[in-house]
Amino acid sequence: MRPRVIIIGAGFAGLNAAKALKNAPVDVLMLDKNNYHTFQPLLYQVATAGLEVGDIAMQVRHIFRKQANFRFRQATVTDVNWDTKEVIVRGGESLSFDYLIIAAGAIYNNFGVKGVYEHGFMLKSLTEAANLRSHMLKQFELASSHPELIETGLLNFVIVGAGPTGVEMAGALAELLDRVLPKDYPELDLNRAKIILLEMTDKVLLPYSKETQAYTQKVLENLNVDIRFKTTVAEVMPDAVKLKDGSSIPTQTLIWAAGVRAHPLVENLGLELDRGFRAKVNPDLSLPDKPYAFMVGDMAAAKDKLGELLPQVATVAIQQGKHVGKQIRRLQEGQRTKVFEYFDKGSMAIIGRNAGVAELSKNLGGFHLRGFLGWLGWLFIHLIYLPGHQNKANALLEWAYNYFTYDRHVRLITYMKTSEGETDLAKEHERQGVSA
Amino acid sequence: MRPRVIIIGAGFAGLNAAKALKNAPVDVLMLDKNNYHTFQPLLYQVATAGLEVGDIAMQVRHIFRKQANFRFRQATVTDVNWDTKEVIVRGGESLSFDYLIIAAGAIYNNFGVKGVYEHGFMLKSLTEAANLRSHMLKQFELASSHPELIETGLLNFVIVGAGPTGVEMAGALAELLDRVLPKDYPELDLNRAKIILLEMTDKVLLPYSKETQAYTQKVLENLNVDIRFKTTVAEVMPDAVKLKDGSSIPTQTLIWAAGVRAHPLVENLGLELDRGFRAKVNPDLSLPDKPYAFMVGDMAAAKDKLGELLPQVATVAIQQGKHVGKQIRRLQEGQRTKVFEYFDKGSMAIIGRNAGVAELSKNLGGFHLRGFLGWLGWLFIHLIYLPGHQNKANALLEWAYNYFTYDRHVRLITYMKTSEGETDLAKEHERQGVSA
Repeated sequence: MRPRVIIIGAGFAGLNAAKALKNAPVDVLMLDKNNYHTFQPLLYQVATAGLEVGDIAMQVRHIFRKQANFRFRQATVTDVNWDTKEVIVRGGESLSFDYLIIAAGAIYNNFGVKGVYEHGFMLKSLTEAANLRSHMLKQFELASSHPELIETGLLNFVIVGAGPTGVEMAGALAELLDRVLPKDYPELDLNRAKIILLEMTDKVLLPYSKETQAYTQKVLENLNVDIRFKTTVAEVMPDAVKLKDGSSIPTQTLIWAAGVRAHPLVENLGLELDRGFRAKVNPDLSLPDKPYAFMVGDMAAAKDKLGELLPQVATVAIQQGKHVGKQIRRLQEGQRTKVFEYFDKGSMAIIGRNAGVAELSKNLGGFHLRGFLGWLGWLFIHLIYLPGHQNKANALLEWAYNYFTYDRHVRLITYMKTSEGETDLAKEHERQGVSA
Repeated sequence: MRPRVIIIGAGFAGLNAAKALKNAPVDVLMLDKNNYHTFQPLLYQVATAGLEVGDIAMQVRHIFRKQANFRFRQATVTDVNWDTKEVIVRGGESLSFDYLIIAAGAIYNNFGVKGVYEHGFMLKSLTEAANLRSHMLKQFELASSHPELIETGLLNFVIVGAGPTGVEMAGALAELLDRVLPKDYPELDLNRAKIILLEMTDKVLLPYSKETQAYTQKVLENLNVDIRFKTTVAEVMPDAVKLKDGSSIPTQTLIWAAGVRAHPLVENLGLELDRGFRAKVNPDLSLPDKPYAFMVGDMAAAKDKLGELLPQVATVAIQQGKHVGKQIRRLQEGQRTKVFEYFDKGSMAIIGRNAGVAELSKNLGGFHLRGFLGWLGWLFIHLIYLPGHQNKANALLEWAYNYFTYDRHVRLITYMKTSEGETDLAKEHERQGVSA
């Protein structure tokens, strides 16, 4: 019998770990609550009608068709039994492993704010993105037949958090409002629709340079996004958001982009946790006292050379996934594992048409791009990483169409059902009240 | 004030009626429970993972962007008040009209068979098609982790009715099983999956020629579809279908393609009904004693010159929609209405790769095409009629990909929620017990 590697999660970390084990003398079994990989960096484009659901998701079995040692199972992991080396899935069945890679990702952190889960929208799954799109379009349908409701905040779209997700969402939504919807709703005065971006600090895109921040703020303001700095949310209600200063903004669409925390599975595993519920890991990404188990991606509290926690972004997850795949190969060959070192390439975000920002890291020369070049670079990188030729072709076609026609194709109001695994997460969301 | 034309339904008939009223001195208001038009002839391709949901749906507002006298409202019509000339929508609001075009289409007819609605799948909406796809893929996921369940009929797919819908569904499902899924599920013996096509008569594609029927039957049998003639369903249960002869077939996937009936709205309107709950209409498609109201498409019991009911197909709906649009123009100009005459172009269906059948009508020379030419003709016609350049481009891309790679791109398990209007229909489905 060849040793069995179980990988929990089909995100960037899980996929890359499995790929790194291609042709290795092991059997790989990947578990995920969905039968597809979600390309999370583009969820905001699904939510703003720029891309189709199917463009940014790919069936896991398809990705690994040519990898003979790979098997997949659609299952939600509820626990790990370290004594028997078994993973427990929803329904009670247990699956034994020799090596374990935990890569279940992150969920939104409500930071203890009441009502975020019940009344807010979050951009962490395909279902949530598709439902946010449908909800927003439905608001315009309602406003069209009942314009008197606009006064109650029907067309107030509030985004919490001016990090990359909040900024990208605000920009894409502004373009939708500005360029696409006026043709759909000639009977509506769309100047009455408002995009309000709430930020706790006094900066957009906190980790970026001052020049990039100033540029981003200017682009958003030109798109009529109302940015309110030093503003903290106290409570989310069904038809308003209450702020710390006592005031409130009427809205039925609050998009929570304030930050993430590790997947709640992490709390069941008897591990020592760091900030944001992330599990402490050894320098090789194995778990303390468990050389056969690795934690990667948004769940792992891996640190850089200065002792800072690595950011919870796709590039870290990809590199960590590859790393642990290779380490399991080394262990199988009787070698010692290597320390994980993150190669920082920089970061990028898109704000609007022809307006992107990209800051390459010092490793890559430290160039900063803004405007059309930043935008083009963003498109290029995202097309490269989007898995599958058909997905790339579809996304390129949609983007070209959107770009040249100033239009968007996907404006269907179709609500998706949350999967069983996502319902479990919903309960976790309600349960968690305190941030770490 | 210009007269107001209300159109109920954004199907083929409704769309074409509205288009025919472009630039007419009237205000057009279209009502539909969804904000999109569904290209129903391709629903079976969504159900068998050949096309994306978004490829065969188009937002109604988008279609009519350039028609200044057109307005849309997402609403479910529950009744018509003939005395006050008002349409009543869900929620109780009433909308007044001067002219009315009723084009709400058809739903599946259960012909009084118990359990069809509760346990069967029907191909009349985007939601149903997407959920059928997800359900079928989920059966393979289950079979992969629990192969012992295959014996209980997990992979038995039963289709009831060998008309065009049943035949197209059987063919597309067979191709999926034969060419696509084996690469996804190397661990499964897919020979254990069965497609069973039940037909009450002793023929497939009843209205077609004997040669076309024989060809179709041969193609389906070569694709391992088990066709059972002279077989009638007695009851549909959650895990089996009971036949009239007392035997039963274990299955959790019964696809009901046995026939349709007019939308249940027709029963609320105080009209005289014909076979299949279709409303009797005057030769100009107006309703008896209501020269300002027209009934078109699958709901209307319009007849040909021989006194036979016209088939409930897209081409009839398209021509009838155009016709009533023109008649309202004539009435506005003080002219008398004209009689509707159906121009029969023939019919076509696709059975498998390179295997289509097309029978042109005598009007068009009476040619019959089978095989590759029939298939190519089918593709061409469906691309022409699919609304929107972006939808055409996407569908062409998907089809080319599917054709050349022997693969299909859309295999996500994502369940859609039924809309409120569809939930109303569900209740109607339960209520109706007798066929007309």
